[in-house]
Amino acid sequence: MTAYDYIHDGDSIYRKSFAIIREEADLSSFSDEQADLAIRMIHACGLVKAAQHFRFSKDFVAKARGALHAGKPIYCDAQMVAHGVTHARLPTANKVICTLRDSRTFELAKTIGNTRSAAALDLWDEMEGSLVAIGNAPTALFRLLEMLDAGAPRPAAIIGMPVGFVGAAESKEALMESAHGIPYAVVCGRMGGSAMTAACINAVARAGL
Amino acid sequence: MTAYDYIHDGDSIYRKSFAIIREEADLSSFSDEQADLAIRMIHACGLVKAAQHFRFSKDFVAKARGALHAGKPIYCDAQMVAHGVTHARLPTANKVICTLRDSRTFELAKTIGNTRSAAALDLWDEMEGSLVAIGNAPTALFRLLEMLDAGAPRPAAIIGMPVGFVGAAESKEALMESAHGIPYAVVCGRMGGSAMTAACINAVARAGL
Repeated sequence: MTAYDYIHDGDSIYRKSFAIIREEADLSSFSDEQADLAIRMIHACGLVKAAQHFRFSKDFVAKARGALHAGKPIYCDAQMVAHGVTHARLPTANKVICTLRDSRTFELAKTIGNTRSAAALDLWDEMEGSLVAIGNAPTALFRLLEMLDAGAPRPAAIIGMPVGFVGAAESKEALMESAHGIPYAVVCGRMGGSAMTAACINAVARAGL
Repeated sequence: MTAYDYIHDGDSIYRKSFAIIREEADLSSFSDEQADLAIRMIHACGLVKAAQHFRFSKDFVAKARGALHAGKPIYCDAQMVAHGVTHARLPTANKVICTLRDSRTFELAKTIGNTRSAAALDLWDEMEGSLVAIGNAPTALFRLLEMLDAGAPRPAAIIGMPVGFVGAAESKEALMESAHGIPYAVVCGRMGGSAMTAACINAVARAGL
């Protein structure tokens, strides 16, 4: 009936996709748990070579997953990240929070002389033990580090994957140097973005692919 | 006061980013209008080399922009695409529609024996003259082509940028072969995704960077 020959079943598509990635990608530097995250992140960008830019600190998966099991919120810098989270995978119906469009953020941005993406973090009032996911704006990641340097409540783990050409690489280097011992997942360099960040959250949310 | 040296002004970050992309990317195969789209799409993925996979049919920009100026809706296959659209750039407060989570979509998917992403298109009831943006699911793009083959109302233009390892490249090849003369923007191969798709929509929505 159709002129196009393609797989119609979502689960089969996922399984075949993950098998292709496992075959083609170099995942040798990752633990089994980290490899599951890497596979989903590769799936989100369509590029197996992206894996060479992934960095997971040793206890990232355990701490990030622990935060979700403890019912802590997920803070996101961008609406696209928040809307990429698969709620059915979350272990405790965790809140997924993005304050970028909160009306107070506009005023805060002027007050602190920074982008709205950075100012939005000043409204993250349950950051202690949370999972923080920066998938868009380098300024948001820099702002997070400034807040931690100043003694802000500590998230359980940080996903640092802003994308772009100005500040993205630098903000992620800064995270790896200045995370105050907080576990992180990073895509080094210019790549990253909301899809890879949401994929990382979704992989953390439930063990196994 | 800060340990981190970075640009705090969003407009300056955009300008510098676009200048870097213009310097590094090979945009020679594009018209000026197409190059603006390409620059924003590169900005969304952090990879200048992605440009070699971009294909714009000759009248894509004019037809897609015309649809938005005529007040037509933007149909998206994924929530992340819809939430990546910058509403302030839209010329006529265009509706941005994603029917993936419509309660009817679940039942439709069973009925047609396809993914929810594909079934969601059966609820796109103002497709004539619209802008269609497929940024996630190859099955949605195949389904669109099947509907057009069967005589469905014709969108003004199609953004075909699903990402992934199973069906993504094939669905985009099929679009370029079987678009029934409808103008398209495509990222060939495995790359693509919601961020590049939303960037393409945002670039179409307003002329100039």
